[in-house]
Amino acid sequence: MRRCYFDHVATNPLHPEVLDVMMPYFKEDFGNPLSIYDLGTSAREAIEKARGQVAGLINAKPQAIVFTSSGAEANNFALRGIAFARQNQGKHAIVSKVEHHSILNSARFLEKSGFVVTYLPVDKHGIVDPDTVKKSINKETVLISVTHASSEIGSIEPIREIAQIAKEHRVTLHADGVATTGNIPVDVKKLGVDLYSMAAHQFYGPKGAGALYVKEGTRIAPLIYGGIQEGGRRAGTENVPAIVGMGKAAEIAAQELPGRMEHCRKLRDALIDSVLKVPNVHLTGHPEKRLPHHSSFVVEFIEGEAMLLMLSMKGILSASGSACSSRALKSSPVLLSLGVPSALAQGSIVFSLGTDNSMEDINYFIEEFPQVVKKLRDMSPFSSGWGQGGEGDKCYTGG
Amino acid sequence: MRRCYFDHVATNPLHPEVLDVMMPYFKEDFGNPLSIYDLGTSAREAIEKARGQVAGLINAKPQAIVFTSSGAEANNFALRGIAFARQNQGKHAIVSKVEHHSILNSARFLEKSGFVVTYLPVDKHGIVDPDTVKKSINKETVLISVTHASSEIGSIEPIREIAQIAKEHRVTLHADGVATTGNIPVDVKKLGVDLYSMAAHQFYGPKGAGALYVKEGTRIAPLIYGGIQEGGRRAGTENVPAIVGMGKAAEIAAQELPGRMEHCRKLRDALIDSVLKVPNVHLTGHPEKRLPHHSSFVVEFIEGEAMLLMLSMKGILSASGSACSSRALKSSPVLLSLGVPSALAQGSIVFSLGTDNSMEDINYFIEEFPQVVKKLRDMSPFSSGWGQGGEGDKCYTGG
Repeated sequence: MRRCYFDHVATNPLHPEVLDVMMPYFKEDFGNPLSIYDLGTSAREAIEKARGQVAGLINAKPQAIVFTSSGAEANNFALRGIAFARQNQGKHAIVSKVEHHSILNSARFLEKSGFVVTYLPVDKHGIVDPDTVKKSINKETVLISVTHASSEIGSIEPIREIAQIAKEHRVTLHADGVATTGNIPVDVKKLGVDLYSMAAHQFYGPKGAGALYVKEGTRIAPLIYGGIQEGGRRAGTENVPAIVGMGKAAEIAAQELPGRMEHCRKLRDALIDSVLKVPNVHLTGHPEKRLPHHSSFVVEFIEGEAMLLMLSMKGILSASGSACSSRALKSSPVLLSLGVPSALAQGSIVFSLGTDNSMEDINYFIEEFPQVVKKLRDMSPFSSGWGQGGEGDKCYTGG
Repeated sequence: MRRCYFDHVATNPLHPEVLDVMMPYFKEDFGNPLSIYDLGTSAREAIEKARGQVAGLINAKPQAIVFTSSGAEANNFALRGIAFARQNQGKHAIVSKVEHHSILNSARFLEKSGFVVTYLPVDKHGIVDPDTVKKSINKETVLISVTHASSEIGSIEPIREIAQIAKEHRVTLHADGVATTGNIPVDVKKLGVDLYSMAAHQFYGPKGAGALYVKEGTRIAPLIYGGIQEGGRRAGTENVPAIVGMGKAAEIAAQELPGRMEHCRKLRDALIDSVLKVPNVHLTGHPEKRLPHHSSFVVEFIEGEAMLLMLSMKGILSASGSACSSRALKSSPVLLSLGVPSALAQGSIVFSLGTDNSMEDINYFIEEFPQVVKKLRDMSPFSSGWGQGGEGDKCYTGG
């Protein structure tokens, strides 16, 4: 049976060249980067090389890159680090409703710590209106966090416009770039952000390595206190092999990005065309302003979980939303914020493509997907409608 | 030239069998553990196997193990997680003065967050007196954190006695087990701790994997918020290869521990005997109650940094204290807490041994070390004493 890995927003396979450069740091070059002898020095130099490579991918200065263990850690670090550093200036933060759990749950923590948080609404495509940001700012506002693109719906947010507003009001702006870094061009200077989160395994790098871009001059409190690693901003013995791998993955992504985007967009567009031919299936997220490798849908009268399982039996591997919530069995707050009804949000599915996919994968998918939907709908008690006033196939027109 | 790696408290080389079990998770088994298809399931099963292996090493239940990215993260998680969860019951915490920076700096953060922290004194060997702990507890006390053993001085603390006191007063007890786990027998049930930190690279596992033991029923707030990983206690895509490696390293450590301890102790004792034959060199930490692979000294009239460099030119790789502070060029607060004068604390050196060392290494060291000390003292302006009242070779008698 064919295997089509269509879940690149959950995680990516490691680029073989990336693994190659990591290997010496599992073997002979095992030193602690803080040690002053040769073994330590070579590990430290490897980390600094990686810092330059990651900085290069997003047009940052190397010293602005702080390595973390994951995108989630970078997001927690950004929100709590800025909130703690600036709490004497004000205790109001703004986040969008289409953020990842690591942002939304960090925001909840801030609320428990005495902050007031505004959750920005989005339009039916999941896009934040910069005017709403402007209106939400008050004298107490110290922090705004808006994702560059949601991995659930793929929509790309107007970060540049939001950054101008943030700058005018001297509010620190963080953008979650976990889904974007290495997948679309990112230039932190042009974007105008103060902080930007990344995760290596989203661009064919290893798990266990992430980073936070912290613009020079931005005061931030550490999330992990301890030794002097990362300029005192993030303690803990550095995960040298993973950091080295992240650097290499960033370097390769910078080189291959245009080709990757073209490859994925072509496959993705063919996939979207075929899926939307199935009745009562709606695209979620913005039709154009979206990640080139990303497609997401709600399928009426079907539970996402059942669809995932049946597709996986056909070798088609996908997700019903964020991997971090895929086993939580709750309606996605991101989809609800778009106005998708709760029952329909249960039928969400995300197909995210990568360099390892081919048009043969898409053709196989195009054959199998309609059959899976038909089979599940034949078994569904809701197949003739949601049972509420006979709204049937007209219950959702948002996408 | 011979290379003697005597810095196992900084980091360990990876056990070859550990790397072998990690490799599939860098290649074909690259899935996200939260994904519901086969690739996810196999990653998840691998993590649960590792959880059991780590639990087995310290006699814990698997569900009490929360994986983190490092020992430092586990320490931060423990202190802030308990402080936040229990702050309504009281805002007083107790830590010892011989803690790692990740504990001491977390304690400082708690102070900034409205907590009062008592820093427990130690005796000249760096040992905490359980009676002092008892006297420090008040109605506000919610948390005690004492290291099981300091990696700087090797002394093993009376955790069991402290645990009894903590239990009587319903205070949560955390022990930093980063230096002990996999190096001496650890039984969290016998110790009676509520929380216990570990780091894989301290027992021939990979960097990038640590864990916190959280006794069943202990309420703790996450340090990293987000998805539902680790039972909602630690978010972020799991570093599957590193976790798998930690599990294997724990399994091997459990099997090999008696042999490792005997091997290291024998070499270490020979090393200590030879070092103490050099005039004006003092052992730091407890002479008997110490980690079997650990020896630490202060060498009068010499700066530790110079000693490290000259030893490294001879292929002898060591540290002047905690790796996390080795480049900070400050007197170690741990040594100062033992009553070591500040100037003398600059001459600190730690030799920590491992399975990769042999008696040939020690014999080589025994030849070289006295010459290095002599050479440095010949160059030192302090070689005839510290220049303060001619205390000379009698300035320190603590060790």
